[in-house]
Amino acid sequence: MIFLSRTERFKSYIYKNLKTMNLKLITLFLGIGCSVFAQNDSEQLRKIYKASLTNGQSYHWLDYLSNEIGGRLSGSLNAELAVEYTKAELEKLGLDRVWLQPVMVPKWVRGNPEFAYIETAPGKTIPVNLCALGGSVATPLQGLKAEVVEVMGIDELKAMPRSKIEGKIVFFNRPMQPDLIQTFEAYGGCVDQRYNGAKEAGKLGALGAIVRSMNLRLDDLPHTGAMSYGDTPVRDRIPSAAISTNDAERLSGLLKIDPTIKFYFKQNCRQLKDVMSYNVIGEITGSQFPNEIIVVGGHLDSWDLGDGSHDDGAGCVQSMDVLRLLTETGIQPKRTIRVVLFMNEENGLRGGRKYAEVAKRKGEKHIFALESDSGGFTPRGFSFDGPDYKINQILKWKPLFEPYLIHYFKQGGSGADIGPLKDSEMVLSGLRPDSQRYFDHHHAANDTFDAVNKRELELGAATMTALVYLVDKYGFNSIENADKLKN
Amino acid sequence: MIFLSRTERFKSYIYKNLKTMNLKLITLFLGIGCSVFAQNDSEQLRKIYKASLTNGQSYHWLDYLSNEIGGRLSGSLNAELAVEYTKAELEKLGLDRVWLQPVMVPKWVRGNPEFAYIETAPGKTIPVNLCALGGSVATPLQGLKAEVVEVMGIDELKAMPRSKIEGKIVFFNRPMQPDLIQTFEAYGGCVDQRYNGAKEAGKLGALGAIVRSMNLRLDDLPHTGAMSYGDTPVRDRIPSAAISTNDAERLSGLLKIDPTIKFYFKQNCRQLKDVMSYNVIGEITGSQFPNEIIVVGGHLDSWDLGDGSHDDGAGCVQSMDVLRLLTETGIQPKRTIRVVLFMNEENGLRGGRKYAEVAKRKGEKHIFALESDSGGFTPRGFSFDGPDYKINQILKWKPLFEPYLIHYFKQGGSGADIGPLKDSEMVLSGLRPDSQRYFDHHHAANDTFDAVNKRELELGAATMTALVYLVDKYGFNSIENADKLKN
Repeated sequence: MIFLSRTERFKSYIYKNLKTMNLKLITLFLGIGCSVFAQNDSEQLRKIYKASLTNGQSYHWLDYLSNEIGGRLSGSLNAELAVEYTKAELEKLGLDRVWLQPVMVPKWVRGNPEFAYIETAPGKTIPVNLCALGGSVATPLQGLKAEVVEVMGIDELKAMPRSKIEGKIVFFNRPMQPDLIQTFEAYGGCVDQRYNGAKEAGKLGALGAIVRSMNLRLDDLPHTGAMSYGDTPVRDRIPSAAISTNDAERLSGLLKIDPTIKFYFKQNCRQLKDVMSYNVIGEITGSQFPNEIIVVGGHLDSWDLGDGSHDDGAGCVQSMDVLRLLTETGIQPKRTIRVVLFMNEENGLRGGRKYAEVAKRKGEKHIFALESDSGGFTPRGFSFDGPDYKINQILKWKPLFEPYLIHYFKQGGSGADIGPLKDSEMVLSGLRPDSQRYFDHHHAANDTFDAVNKRELELGAATMTALVYLVDKYGFNSIENADKLKN
Repeated sequence: MIFLSRTERFKSYIYKNLKTMNLKLITLFLGIGCSVFAQNDSEQLRKIYKASLTNGQSYHWLDYLSNEIGGRLSGSLNAELAVEYTKAELEKLGLDRVWLQPVMVPKWVRGNPEFAYIETAPGKTIPVNLCALGGSVATPLQGLKAEVVEVMGIDELKAMPRSKIEGKIVFFNRPMQPDLIQTFEAYGGCVDQRYNGAKEAGKLGALGAIVRSMNLRLDDLPHTGAMSYGDTPVRDRIPSAAISTNDAERLSGLLKIDPTIKFYFKQNCRQLKDVMSYNVIGEITGSQFPNEIIVVGGHLDSWDLGDGSHDDGAGCVQSMDVLRLLTETGIQPKRTIRVVLFMNEENGLRGGRKYAEVAKRKGEKHIFALESDSGGFTPRGFSFDGPDYKINQILKWKPLFEPYLIHYFKQGGSGADIGPLKDSEMVLSGLRPDSQRYFDHHHAANDTFDAVNKRELELGAATMTALVYLVDKYGFNSIENADKLKN
């Protein structure tokens, strides 16, 4: 027995019951759902998924990036090794063109391992797992010790008198909201504490700012990430760090017993001068419309605590494999398919900005960009950002993805690196993998290769390839054509 | 902007274009999709998911089952500890009734750790990771050494002359098919080698049978699982074991170089007499229809190599939490909701059979049974087995689950333990979590607590609770009513 979807049951209902309806019209609109893609698209998708799951290269590349190179913070030696490695691997694929796009990137270095503790009484200390936030200044050489003011966010901080903050360490402890199904929403609702916490606490005379790690799980790992001082003068910048969720719970509990306990931390991170780095780019030139460019990408830089396997080694190797999988499954793209491994997403977005700037200067026409930067977990679908009539066209391809359990096609964000390409005509898209485990690893020492499942990674690469295949094959309707189809 | 689903676009198309249609009829059938559930069902589901993600007990229970008790092979002390523990925990929930249902179960013991190697030349050996299959006999005391015949399955074996098999060890090496998206299908396509391999090899005079582990990944862990000798007389039973996928690849490679290499393995597992064990059962008696029973369950026994966290500690604790979550979110069930933790799914299904037998003897009316036995991963939906008109009713609830990214509602199997309950009227259902990682852990030493993600487990518990809530609230239409709604 075959189940009928709601749409199908609906259609069948009409056929059975509405004999008075204009049959021609019925036939017309029942056809809409059925004729939007050819049978051979189903076959092509099957080929793509099979090729990825049986002969995918993404996992092999990720193994090298993660285990032979490791964390790839912008400006680091590892980042440069990753540029060299991925360029060389793209060259092996026999693309039409592979090149490096120079971009100046910030170089922030963590320095010596951080050290931190809670002092419950003179000489009585409890060690704390802490890491400096990316972009933070160092503490004084001897470290920083002060009483702690716990707040649940920046609003609560701003409502407090300067006298309560001055000379203290502000502890931002609002957890990620656990009942949100999509963990990226929970992250979005919290990350202002990490990004702006030190800036705001500094304005009120705080000596330092610490933040509960952006992690839904209770564990011992501190999670780093970018922070900003905005236009705070250098002399007024206060050091900022994250502590593990277990330590955040402990500190909060101890503060309830005794608000006068002290917190100590020491870090000697610093911001050096910008250095030259590169976006790594490869392309297959389109056979019919070489000037219509489709971008697929991820970011090559990562934080330094883990090896950046999920964030965003996964997105890079998946994007690389999109071009290889198209070729392996016999596709000669009509449009130009370009893989871009962006540099410096994590602490500057310089690569994404540079790519868009050069594209604009050259007058390149980008019709579609797809980024994978949400981890290498089982893909669930895509989010889209672009004109409605184009997104509606993509939605018609949704049934093609159902055999692969890809159901999620929603409007939403895309990816940070491709964001600067946005214009009124382009469609931007983000691969949306299962998000439940992502923040267990994000920006922490356990964002490592062993946390990536080979099949999940390969399913993501196949899912991206399938969408790129369809966009390349059909392009996008003009708005006039879209209106015609609609009315 | 809000996206329209295909159904909604379809509806909107009709509204816009078919002015000649009978408006009354349109309104009637457009109403079908909208009126099948009340607004407060959405709210109730929100409550259920929130309660599970913020105050779920499943992970806490699983921690105890896995880390304090461990692997729970039928007839073992651990299995009895698990019976006591779960009964005590159910009693704490204030259910209307908690009881143990006695059932005799097989008691197979692994004995000493197995030992195995490949002998490429006299005195030259390569160690192999091997585990006895559940139900296998032991090797002779000194172990078993023989040449190896590699086959890709039972059909290939059966086509071979007895002379090629006699005195050898048969090595079943057909891998799970990697391009199947649902890994349970790949398992289903392979597991006959494990279950029937020794029986068939023995008929042709083989001395032993080894099988490539049912694992899609290349790693060093052997995966156990049930095997059967059918009606083979005891004296003709040959020992059977699984080797890791890496070892299977190695053995196969070496055999291609030299088909005369030998394989050695030693195991002293044995089948003891059946012992008494129990299904653990608890229920909330229905307030309106106490005689209509809804079962939710998993199996409490597990294999012995890991701690049985995914298979099927997860299903047990999720099922236990279904009753608690209903109560916590203010539901007083109309029908009787019964949690059943079945004993002996892995090597006998005695618990499932006993439960059905007793239910039949007592004339109990079961309307619905839901099993979770596919791991504690992110839930994707359900499979259903039952009369079409009842499944169609369930399909109408699908939109309620979409905010929780639950999209998969398909006909298919349910769960082994609830299978014996099947009759022409009942609906059986299986929770369908993401299956990509399941066989990395299934029946192996790494089926452990650390492989379970708390949120994924809790999302599964909430998803089960939501479906049980809906079945309890609406019951099932009679076929006469279903026909009326249809026509």
